[in-house]
Amino acid sequence: MKLNGLSKNEHIYLQIADHIEQQILGQVLKIGDKLPSVRILSKEHGVSVSTILQSYYHLESKGFIESRPQSGYYVRYNPSRFPGKVQKSNPQLTVKHKDVETMIGEVYDDFSMKGHLRFSLSVPSPELLPLARLNKSMLHALRNLPGNGTSYEQVQGNEMLRRQIARSTLNWGGQVSAEDLVTTSGCMNAISFCLMAVAKPGDMIAVESPVYFGVLRFAQSIGLKLLELPTDPDTGVDPSDLKKALEQHPIKACFFVTNFSNPLGYCMPDEKKQEMVRLLAHYGVPLIEDDLYGDIYFGKKRPLSCKSFDEEGLVLWCSSISKSLAPGYRVGWVAPGKFMEQIKRQKLYHGITSATAQQAAIGDFLATGRYEHHLRKLRQTLYSNSLHYKRAIGEYFPEGVKSSDPKGGFIIWVELDRKIDTYQLYQEAMLHKISIAPGAMFSLQDRYQNCMRLSYGMPWTPEVDKALKKLGGLVKEMM
Amino acid sequence: MKLNGLSKNEHIYLQIADHIEQQILGQVLKIGDKLPSVRILSKEHGVSVSTILQSYYHLESKGFIESRPQSGYYVRYNPSRFPGKVQKSNPQLTVKHKDVETMIGEVYDDFSMKGHLRFSLSVPSPELLPLARLNKSMLHALRNLPGNGTSYEQVQGNEMLRRQIARSTLNWGGQVSAEDLVTTSGCMNAISFCLMAVAKPGDMIAVESPVYFGVLRFAQSIGLKLLELPTDPDTGVDPSDLKKALEQHPIKACFFVTNFSNPLGYCMPDEKKQEMVRLLAHYGVPLIEDDLYGDIYFGKKRPLSCKSFDEEGLVLWCSSISKSLAPGYRVGWVAPGKFMEQIKRQKLYHGITSATAQQAAIGDFLATGRYEHHLRKLRQTLYSNSLHYKRAIGEYFPEGVKSSDPKGGFIIWVELDRKIDTYQLYQEAMLHKISIAPGAMFSLQDRYQNCMRLSYGMPWTPEVDKALKKLGGLVKEMM
Repeated sequence: MKLNGLSKNEHIYLQIADHIEQQILGQVLKIGDKLPSVRILSKEHGVSVSTILQSYYHLESKGFIESRPQSGYYVRYNPSRFPGKVQKSNPQLTVKHKDVETMIGEVYDDFSMKGHLRFSLSVPSPELLPLARLNKSMLHALRNLPGNGTSYEQVQGNEMLRRQIARSTLNWGGQVSAEDLVTTSGCMNAISFCLMAVAKPGDMIAVESPVYFGVLRFAQSIGLKLLELPTDPDTGVDPSDLKKALEQHPIKACFFVTNFSNPLGYCMPDEKKQEMVRLLAHYGVPLIEDDLYGDIYFGKKRPLSCKSFDEEGLVLWCSSISKSLAPGYRVGWVAPGKFMEQIKRQKLYHGITSATAQQAAIGDFLATGRYEHHLRKLRQTLYSNSLHYKRAIGEYFPEGVKSSDPKGGFIIWVELDRKIDTYQLYQEAMLHKISIAPGAMFSLQDRYQNCMRLSYGMPWTPEVDKALKKLGGLVKEMM
Repeated sequence: MKLNGLSKNEHIYLQIADHIEQQILGQVLKIGDKLPSVRILSKEHGVSVSTILQSYYHLESKGFIESRPQSGYYVRYNPSRFPGKVQKSNPQLTVKHKDVETMIGEVYDDFSMKGHLRFSLSVPSPELLPLARLNKSMLHALRNLPGNGTSYEQVQGNEMLRRQIARSTLNWGGQVSAEDLVTTSGCMNAISFCLMAVAKPGDMIAVESPVYFGVLRFAQSIGLKLLELPTDPDTGVDPSDLKKALEQHPIKACFFVTNFSNPLGYCMPDEKKQEMVRLLAHYGVPLIEDDLYGDIYFGKKRPLSCKSFDEEGLVLWCSSISKSLAPGYRVGWVAPGKFMEQIKRQKLYHGITSATAQQAAIGDFLATGRYEHHLRKLRQTLYSNSLHYKRAIGEYFPEGVKSSDPKGGFIIWVELDRKIDTYQLYQEAMLHKISIAPGAMFSLQDRYQNCMRLSYGMPWTPEVDKALKKLGGLVKEMM
């Protein structure tokens, strides 16, 4: 085995593991193949036995290999047993309104249910979060804030937090300065301000399909019309499809989750983002970009945002730390381009400002430089989880099941046989204390009834495996 | 001096002070009158000399009396030198829209200005808040919350907080249970949810006049029409005026700050509240009741709320701890009556839920029973401040100045000569690092240009006195 193209500062055990992983993914090593013994591999690489063991443990934790007592390590991963891939969506290019409110209300009520396995909730579970460090930052903030955090923060938001966000985006070409940012109570809050700032009741908004139900419901509640666009599960909305829509409909603004979309999981290629921004600039149509999963990439580097290509100030870039650090802190933000004044007013009018202490705490946490360290671990865990889920879905669900192929984030989209109604599945599963997000929540067009969104934002445990098996069993019974 | 009708558990020094205060207010003791010597009074009441001294210190701190070296204590308070009283407002009973957005934006930008004396800001300053105790509750919350406050709180809000709010309202006949409440990010956030839940763009809302500019601006931003009603500076909107308006206009909902209104300071008498609720029930029109100053009463007991009389579930009772404990915590709530489902959805759609830790911290703080203790001190201080302000305004401002007569809260409404434009005064004052809230912010009808709102929510100091003198001087120059 040769190790090429790997940077020197990566741990050697990770380099070796990565190399083996590639061979498994490329089916050079196939399921059931025995791996070289630890001793042989250590000789071959000129590294210690314990380094090789570390590589194997790592691959085992990701679900690629398994150890068999008195025998050694074997490949247990088989991409061909994975579920098939979800196809590009094909919504009707007309505006329809179906009331899925009750369903969404029901699923969200599960928030408070103790003891449920909540595949429905797209948040990382506390076990994956750097709680001790966050507490430290929170205490630091409370100690140092004027009035210990009892005073109002300025409307635009904590300055240090904005500086830190700006700094971190510059690392990957995000092109945002502290002055460009307004903090909000989480990303959905940022999106709601954006939608209210750029559109009036009766206006039409173009979105991906399936689309995050929070946006769908919010938009509907303020009287916006939603045009759902065909969406590729790998690359998102195609600029050519959007162009057609722009020519045929009075689109007031677009909303896309450009990186590791919720729920479809696609990551829009950077060239496509650039093309999209150019197209929208031509039509003078603003884009509300939801980039809250962007930091949780499984590849080598963070994908860019549409904001990175925005020259006209037409991209309103929204994000938060709810998916990577602390959902309950309610810290999000938006870089609203030329809509800065409108956004600041929205924030002022809706609730004056957002909670003071958490803004300062996250500012402090980012300033310590621990965020990148935490993210590295989190990405590793979530990537590994995604493989576990794909394996489990392929294994436990009836043949023909399809899924998205997430390259980041912690959401997987599952497509079942057309006969299956996932709202019914949701209700059945709830009896077993398992909650899922039924596909019908993600459209107003009577679509995706045979789909569901599952979150893998919790540690992989035998219980999770069992719950997925149970889900698969319920689907089989329903067929 | 006889002390009647005072409960035994009040401190004896306060009883004596209160008695003297009443005599001063009733002009039995007039400005310049010498008070009995400490020795004589101590004999008369059969209490120690130090108790009488305590009474005198107390009255001195409130600005009622002053000590003259080697001579004793003298009355320094003269209600006849107070500003005259503001008259009932008389807005046009038609819907008008004037753009005061820029002015509001400007005044709110002062939030972040350091070193300014901000009469414009209706929040209590940190010196008046129980910071150490709050910190303790915050630490307790962070320690005990699942995930140390990183997890989402349920949409309806922290249960313990809701129980504690319910408990405290029951003390004064508030009639609200934990299940009736939804927590929000402060009171304005509650009001914005209520307005979005009960009205659609184009609908008409009846409000008091002058009206809190936050509500005015929010309502305008979502396309509501505002009907401003005549408002008495002592008792608020009269049910007979409202009845007339209900007969002539398609009013969709009402918004009133029923206790110690912002900005006019009136407290609607409880009988009038009952009448109002009955009237609105007859017309089936919901009332959004903003009761966030209710706990800061200067009288003997807390006034009731309209909610106390609500049998139909038509009153949406909004409040927060922003005016009494911690503005920056962003903890508010609403008891929305029969609009419960709509409010929960508004909260879910706009930002999923509000910050976790502060809800638990305030729940803990209320549970310790320290809130009532803190409020007693705060009311004392603010009442005393209100007297200082009235004295200073009467003394420093040109003759003919009028003001509201606040019986609670920490806002005073000042009416100047018709020639004075308070927006111009605002700009002049800003040069001296003093900010005020110009009256024109509180109406859409080109009104109240000669009025301003001042906050006395900060400790009374020589600097504050000096700033009021400066303001008065600026007004004199402008005449």
